[in-house]
Amino acid sequence: MTDHEKELQKQVFGIAENAVKASRRMAGIDSAYKRETLMKIADRLDKKADDIKFRNEIDLDAAREDSIPEAMINRLILDDGRIKSMTEGIREVASLKDPVGEIIETIDRPNGLKIEKVRVPLGVIGMIYESRPNVTGDAAALCLMSSNVVILRGGSEALNSNLAIGHLIRDVLAETRIPADALQIIDNTDRKIIGYLTTLSGLVDVIIPRGSQEMIRSVSRGSSVPVIGHGKGLCHTYIGAAADKKKAIEISLNAKVQRPGVCNALETLLIHRDAAEEVLPELCEKMEAAGVQLRGDEKTRRIYDMTDASEKDWGTEYLALILSIKIVESTDEAVGHIQHYGSGHSDAIITEDKTDAEKFLNEVDSACVYVNASTRFTDGNQMGLGAEIGISNQKLHARGPMGLKELTSYKYKIKGSGQIRP
Amino acid sequence: MTDHEKELQKQVFGIAENAVKASRRMAGIDSAYKRETLMKIADRLDKKADDIKFRNEIDLDAAREDSIPEAMINRLILDDGRIKSMTEGIREVASLKDPVGEIIETIDRPNGLKIEKVRVPLGVIGMIYESRPNVTGDAAALCLMSSNVVILRGGSEALNSNLAIGHLIRDVLAETRIPADALQIIDNTDRKIIGYLTTLSGLVDVIIPRGSQEMIRSVSRGSSVPVIGHGKGLCHTYIGAAADKKKAIEISLNAKVQRPGVCNALETLLIHRDAAEEVLPELCEKMEAAGVQLRGDEKTRRIYDMTDASEKDWGTEYLALILSIKIVESTDEAVGHIQHYGSGHSDAIITEDKTDAEKFLNEVDSACVYVNASTRFTDGNQMGLGAEIGISNQKLHARGPMGLKELTSYKYKIKGSGQIRP
Repeated sequence: MTDHEKELQKQVFGIAENAVKASRRMAGIDSAYKRETLMKIADRLDKKADDIKFRNEIDLDAAREDSIPEAMINRLILDDGRIKSMTEGIREVASLKDPVGEIIETIDRPNGLKIEKVRVPLGVIGMIYESRPNVTGDAAALCLMSSNVVILRGGSEALNSNLAIGHLIRDVLAETRIPADALQIIDNTDRKIIGYLTTLSGLVDVIIPRGSQEMIRSVSRGSSVPVIGHGKGLCHTYIGAAADKKKAIEISLNAKVQRPGVCNALETLLIHRDAAEEVLPELCEKMEAAGVQLRGDEKTRRIYDMTDASEKDWGTEYLALILSIKIVESTDEAVGHIQHYGSGHSDAIITEDKTDAEKFLNEVDSACVYVNASTRFTDGNQMGLGAEIGISNQKLHARGPMGLKELTSYKYKIKGSGQIRP
Repeated sequence: MTDHEKELQKQVFGIAENAVKASRRMAGIDSAYKRETLMKIADRLDKKADDIKFRNEIDLDAAREDSIPEAMINRLILDDGRIKSMTEGIREVASLKDPVGEIIETIDRPNGLKIEKVRVPLGVIGMIYESRPNVTGDAAALCLMSSNVVILRGGSEALNSNLAIGHLIRDVLAETRIPADALQIIDNTDRKIIGYLTTLSGLVDVIIPRGSQEMIRSVSRGSSVPVIGHGKGLCHTYIGAAADKKKAIEISLNAKVQRPGVCNALETLLIHRDAAEEVLPELCEKMEAAGVQLRGDEKTRRIYDMTDASEKDWGTEYLALILSIKIVESTDEAVGHIQHYGSGHSDAIITEDKTDAEKFLNEVDSACVYVNASTRFTDGNQMGLGAEIGISNQKLHARGPMGLKELTSYKYKIKGSGQIRP
């Protein structure tokens, strides 16, 4: 390890130590105080929108100079609309139910021990994300409202924007009883930092990476801190033999085109052979009219002319106006396909047959399984769970939308009067 | 990678693939059927106790030949008593509430979507453990009752015993609708196997290592599958200024000597200076009478003669009849010490002062925090949660005793009638 690396490592360790100290002080902060502080943060960010936009311009100029793709530059922009939407998001989080302190379960033991299972914050959260600087505000609000402290490591392309937002929030915190170190932004863009941060088990309680599959994989690999990744969404809609044609077409179209670049959008359409002849022609026409490029298996292409779908297509999350289509012989085949190629995110069946629907709901092992609805509803807000820090497609701890409650753990408080174990 | 390594890796991959297939078939098995199967397993193990003891003798002979320490050999023994206690344990698991299918939450959305958050199995569990072969039966029962499938990797020293139990269970399963591959035992003792097993994310859903800290660390390192470790218990009892002397002595003594070799036993005693003069002499006498070797800080040694405690002592989980003792100036200092040196397992305060008790319960960040009771109660059975596969001291997913409920995840079942996202 070079001197520079040692210095970096020491720096990250210091940040984590400050986070732990701040975390301990969060125990004394009640719900009302947290809400009030979030409202102050939202007001301050609104008031200082011009400063944020000014710092954002520096990132945008650098990005344009580096010929970063237009789509990425778009995600980087902080205009009045986006700042407004970020501060509205923060105010919304302030209005949510505080999960901390909730008594999940009480157990009275025959020996007189009184046990309470109580919800507590996770502690120190390390969040690693890319481009969109508004995530800085969202993540800060969710972590603070759940009495966690957060260490943010955004992408280098958004550093000035992230720091602008982060410093404003820390300035507000410095005026309150919540320690400013409840939010820390790592301002060093060396990628080695991530490696150091993810080995600090004992100080950092969880790492939440949000971004590309590759990024999540690289963060997970070698992490001794538990990781909850928010990654791939290879979502399917299966049109069953007993599907209503109108619903099938409207739902598939919505799932594919309403916002194709997100994780809950449709990527592969499966259709039962008994429904294919009736549904596919109109569905494909409408998809193409909406700008969707179609790729089908052989049977599909016999019904509607399109590009050949290769094995690779079934495993690809396009995040674009591309749809792969496959005709299946049975619901079993559809379920099998989803289990094999899916990402455990969101999958839907379109059917009027209850038995078929139940089979699909039970057998498809995904965070969200739908009957007759668009997979685009997999979202904390849309599902009535409140704002989310991301959507987890792992099964441990948090599955699906990860909101305030999923940012907590629990502890057992056990009150006795001298009980000893016989 | 050598040909031999490739072969091993292929073997582990095959086991995991069989596990996934078995896992899918578990969805169709109801509670009553699982209970009935567990009862059959317990009966068969009782009936074939002689076969198990015979195979166990082979392990014991080899262990004695290898001059394995007596304590380890003791853990390895399967006599009639231990087999009985294992089969009683399996019957007890069969009587527990089945968590699978429980509707945790229902949400009716304004747009008509009906959302059910339903408890589901984790899927494929990889369990890595050492010596005690009765764990094979316990783990099998807990995993099957929660509709999970399990891949067991025990220690090489217990291989014959584990296989004897495992094969009997698989024989019973082969007579039922539960696939025999719901329980697989890795019979290859090459340590590389663990490395291969822990990289099979996508096939294996969670790895549960149970054993020494070193073993858990080595399993976690490099694992791409989430790990829930069941490890260190460096437990404290803090005798506050307002402690009842009798309770303080009885509880500390129980926590230290009732079973010193387990993770919820007392390792470090903290005592407020105002209680020290009155409590320490009698407490120390009784500890020594019970065979406990004492190590104290300077202030403690001024009150009672004992060995000097070094910095290393505060961080050591003795798992033996050794106790370190420290006098503190305040509850804050006690909490600080526990946060710094503790393992987040179980910690107790002895006090008659409610404010002091609440402070301790809120500020000590451990899975189980006690007032006026022995830390030895941290146990699924003792806490009324049912049998446990281990005690987790991490905050993600499962904290404290990990029983049937903690061996589950959840999914969202969402029923619509054509809803699309506007």
